[in-house]
Amino acid sequence: MKIVSLEHPSKLLFVESLDYNNPYDFTKIHKHDYFEILFIQKGGGSQLIDDQRFKLEDLSIFMIQPGQVHLLNRDLAEGKIVQFGKDIFAHMFPLEFHHLLFKQPKVEISETDFFHLYSLIEHMDKIIKEEGASSMAIFKSYSYLQIILIHLIEKHNVTQTKNTKLAARFLELLSVHIKDKRNVVDYANMLYVSVDTLNYHCKLNFGKTPLNLINEEVVKETKRLMLLGTHSIVEIGYELNFNSPSNFSSFIKKNTGKTPKQLNIDIKSII
Amino acid sequence: MKIVSLEHPSKLLFVESLDYNNPYDFTKIHKHDYFEILFIQKGGGSQLIDDQRFKLEDLSIFMIQPGQVHLLNRDLAEGKIVQFGKDIFAHMFPLEFHHLLFKQPKVEISETDFFHLYSLIEHMDKIIKEEGASSMAIFKSYSYLQIILIHLIEKHNVTQTKNTKLAARFLELLSVHIKDKRNVVDYANMLYVSVDTLNYHCKLNFGKTPLNLINEEVVKETKRLMLLGTHSIVEIGYELNFNSPSNFSSFIKKNTGKTPKQLNIDIKSII
Repeated sequence: MKIVSLEHPSKLLFVESLDYNNPYDFTKIHKHDYFEILFIQKGGGSQLIDDQRFKLEDLSIFMIQPGQVHLLNRDLAEGKIVQFGKDIFAHMFPLEFHHLLFKQPKVEISETDFFHLYSLIEHMDKIIKEEGASSMAIFKSYSYLQIILIHLIEKHNVTQTKNTKLAARFLELLSVHIKDKRNVVDYANMLYVSVDTLNYHCKLNFGKTPLNLINEEVVKETKRLMLLGTHSIVEIGYELNFNSPSNFSSFIKKNTGKTPKQLNIDIKSII
Repeated sequence: MKIVSLEHPSKLLFVESLDYNNPYDFTKIHKHDYFEILFIQKGGGSQLIDDQRFKLEDLSIFMIQPGQVHLLNRDLAEGKIVQFGKDIFAHMFPLEFHHLLFKQPKVEISETDFFHLYSLIEHMDKIIKEEGASSMAIFKSYSYLQIILIHLIEKHNVTQTKNTKLAARFLELLSVHIKDKRNVVDYANMLYVSVDTLNYHCKLNFGKTPLNLINEEVVKETKRLMLLGTHSIVEIGYELNFNSPSNFSSFIKKNTGKTPKQLNIDIKSII
């Protein structure tokens, strides 16, 4: 499976025009190992993020997370793409990357806010590309990014509880370990809390048990692998560490109501 | 002599109009225990900073440092004052308040830059004064301030030597790796220099050894984690890779003169 990395490995943060000359074939479905925020100034075209299709409308903003499946059909859309690696969060305060594990890729924002953030991106871009900038200039660009990210997070999490952090950290671990770990107790151990505590916070924040969330993540990853089209169904089952194709099949049946084969056909029809 | 403190003790950062109704008699010479940056949009009047008098000219910027003597004769000048306490630097990266110990209070800046910074101040002001803002909004305002400060620092340090860069890069690595790496040799290796070279440049730039700076960073990170309030003291010790709570405790005692518990109480009082 093709996983795309940042084009400029020495830079944790980069801004591109929406119509930039991609270094990889973006007309093929792919995954990134970095974050992308798309600021669509002028609409046109559409994109696929995991199994959801979004129209690229005027003044819309999308967040694509590492590991999500992505396919951009830009058409006439214009705008900017902000790309950054997870490691950038070591330079930020008080953000951590799990703040960005949004439930929905699309962020709703007012026109005024859009244009303010857009102007910040332009300044950020100028700083990043400036020749002979000071050694501190890069941190100025990170500060611009932090403003943008907090703004988007605020739009997403209108009500933030104290406990959001544990729950969010669980989602973060999920996305990293989903292929190997499927027991709630494994995650509770990694978070230094009891299974009961993890249960409590997941229900409070997401209205779901940790096991529900684990199973959902397995289904999501299955769909991603199907969308990427590089694995057979049997291979997907092994990639996700099921003991046998029939175990995988009954898991998918139970959690989606479809056989893997049906799911694969349905999911491919959206591309 | 009167030493003036921030008017809103619960806020580390505040923006006022230049013609605001001072809570103290500013026609008498005074000292602040906080920083002030004056952005003069429309000139008029003059001010005394320590033993220098400055005319308030159109589009001029002045930095008044804690402890400096100040007397403002505003006359018809218009603009904005950004006020902030030293403690704000606990929330910033990678700035420290010593970055702002300018040799000259006046900062020369282009008209374009002035108006960009001025618009950032307006956004910052709006965030600070917004009712019912999110718990993260305050950090957005700090990010705006960080952009402004780095900009002013850059204007001030026109010539930066090669050696500043190595020392600055060391500080940058420190902040990224402080949780795992505490040996000077690890950092020297990452910088492709010898321990002696790193020692030399740290002493030259900061008057401190790399080990001093490593220990300071551990203390800073401890304070940040305390401020975040998501970890118990024992958890902070483990997060920072101390072998045991007692090792952590004696490290903090040695480097701050306080027990972790005392430090935690003191640090929380600044929020």
